[in-house]
Amino acid sequence: MIRLGQTSPHWYNHYMMSEFDLIAHYFTRPVRRTGRIALGIGDDCALLKPAPGVQLAISTDMLVEGRHFFADADPAKLGHKCLAVNLSDLAAMGAQPLAFTLALSLPAARVEWLTAFSDGLFGLADLHDCELIGGDTTKGPLNICITVFGDIPIGEALRRDSAQEGDDIWVSGALGEARLALAHYWNEIVLDSAALESAAARMHTPTPRVELGLALRGIAHAAIDISDGLAGDLGHILQRSRLGATVNVDALPSGPALARQTQELRRRYTLGGGDDYELCFTAPTARREAVLAAAQSAAVGVARIGRIEAAPGLRLVDEAGTALALPTTSFDHFATP
Amino acid sequence: MIRLGQTSPHWYNHYMMSEFDLIAHYFTRPVRRTGRIALGIGDDCALLKPAPGVQLAISTDMLVEGRHFFADADPAKLGHKCLAVNLSDLAAMGAQPLAFTLALSLPAARVEWLTAFSDGLFGLADLHDCELIGGDTTKGPLNICITVFGDIPIGEALRRDSAQEGDDIWVSGALGEARLALAHYWNEIVLDSAALESAAARMHTPTPRVELGLALRGIAHAAIDISDGLAGDLGHILQRSRLGATVNVDALPSGPALARQTQELRRRYTLGGGDDYELCFTAPTARREAVLAAAQSAAVGVARIGRIEAAPGLRLVDEAGTALALPTTSFDHFATP
Repeated sequence: MIRLGQTSPHWYNHYMMSEFDLIAHYFTRPVRRTGRIALGIGDDCALLKPAPGVQLAISTDMLVEGRHFFADADPAKLGHKCLAVNLSDLAAMGAQPLAFTLALSLPAARVEWLTAFSDGLFGLADLHDCELIGGDTTKGPLNICITVFGDIPIGEALRRDSAQEGDDIWVSGALGEARLALAHYWNEIVLDSAALESAAARMHTPTPRVELGLALRGIAHAAIDISDGLAGDLGHILQRSRLGATVNVDALPSGPALARQTQELRRRYTLGGGDDYELCFTAPTARREAVLAAAQSAAVGVARIGRIEAAPGLRLVDEAGTALALPTTSFDHFATP
Repeated sequence: MIRLGQTSPHWYNHYMMSEFDLIAHYFTRPVRRTGRIALGIGDDCALLKPAPGVQLAISTDMLVEGRHFFADADPAKLGHKCLAVNLSDLAAMGAQPLAFTLALSLPAARVEWLTAFSDGLFGLADLHDCELIGGDTTKGPLNICITVFGDIPIGEALRRDSAQEGDDIWVSGALGEARLALAHYWNEIVLDSAALESAAARMHTPTPRVELGLALRGIAHAAIDISDGLAGDLGHILQRSRLGATVNVDALPSGPALARQTQELRRRYTLGGGDDYELCFTAPTARREAVLAAAQSAAVGVARIGRIEAAPGLRLVDEAGTALALPTTSFDHFATP
């Protein structure tokens, strides 16, 4: 690692700081979870101690300016979001957050930006007791790459390949609000300020469903987090479990701003909007009460949206059970301009 | 993770491929180390099983076009180098490579580039039995971020803070050749084609000293890999160990191309060139034979360049012991244009 915080903290009071100073200043904090983190920031590698009976879940996400966020993105919200999307992957496995590394390419080391970014980042990290253990910084186009680590008791991971025929399909929270905010920013629709505020909050500061993922251990068969749109992400469960599903599109939960839009928009954005960071999971019908109790303990709503079936493919129906022909494609970074 | 290889491999024969197709095609391979990797590419997270008595060493490095490599860099060499710099961090801890994640921002998904890049990447990965277990791809300015994982028996890590007064200071291989190649590319000097070829090989396809790091377990007190220049990187050992050192600048090993340059250039590039990916380590004088045997077993040369002392600071001397005033600054990404 090109070493977070490896030099002494003799700060420059400059608009531009040196690499080592900025890192030491904004990203170095004492290791608190000394039980598991044998060595944090400041050496060639960090060292994690294994806990008995536990596997390490690992996920990495890269966020690029102009692709995942606007050039003028609020740095505090960006700090929150780039960790949130990684914690969402841990949530989808039922993993307990433990630590993360941060690699950051920045056009310039601006004090205001770094202060706000690290505040947003550590604000969410502290909520989940997830420690920064290392990283890298470089000059370049704005790019944030986080790798996150979590604990899962052996055999309890919520995988994508474990759905079973007859399972209920569930989704947490509400879908489509982030896509609705994007539609406003792209001038596809016009939201009033209250609607924009609530939709934009879902887009900029998503809540990773970590507690729900933990509560679903031993209850859910399969799970995934919804980053590219429900239809596509559920499709990954179906493909890896070698099964199909029927989903009631009108059972998909929309947030308050999307709920006031047309049925066509609600269906399109809840199915394929993306950037939701809710969990989609399957569980046996016999565990419906357990699912609801898990959701209650995690203080998040869950909606039952369909059923896993033997016949491959994803079938969409309306409330009355009539088949619908709606697009189910996921976001593809290289198919879009 | 935005999931390496999560869709079925129905390849497009297009110049531009979709994200999921390109990932599945170029980066998905069956997991071979099933003993430690419980789940590889294709879910929200990868799962690593702990081995008894072993800690996990973790390092991350981000390489940016125009900063760490030229825009026209050979993609096969780039694939090699971006993993090499990460393996070098494992080597500096004495860790055994286990696995890595890859996050890749690409302007376009070009078949030729991806073929060569993945060939270079996996060529080095296979040499060290290091498996790709997950990652992320996105469209954007070329940026490669790798996080690497290795095993170290508890208590055997070669840390930076463990140098002891009286230790010899050693360095592996040869220094300054990568900087010499860069000087040629920057038109600071002109190398003949043979010299350029050997220097450029050090710059583009460095050899991480993994075997040496492993062989130094139980022998070396402290170690670091030389990425930003010997003087600065040794400085990190001194700072964290709260000690000082005297180094004989004329004992620093230069490679064959640099050896034919002026003494001034040799001293400057071996001390502060950077991009060397050699190991600098300290060991008790009583273990000189053990160090030499470790180097022999790892098939790499080592040179004894100085001594750890109680007085803080790095003192540079020539062969006769006369003090030299030479710059000892490290490369700083934000201090340079």
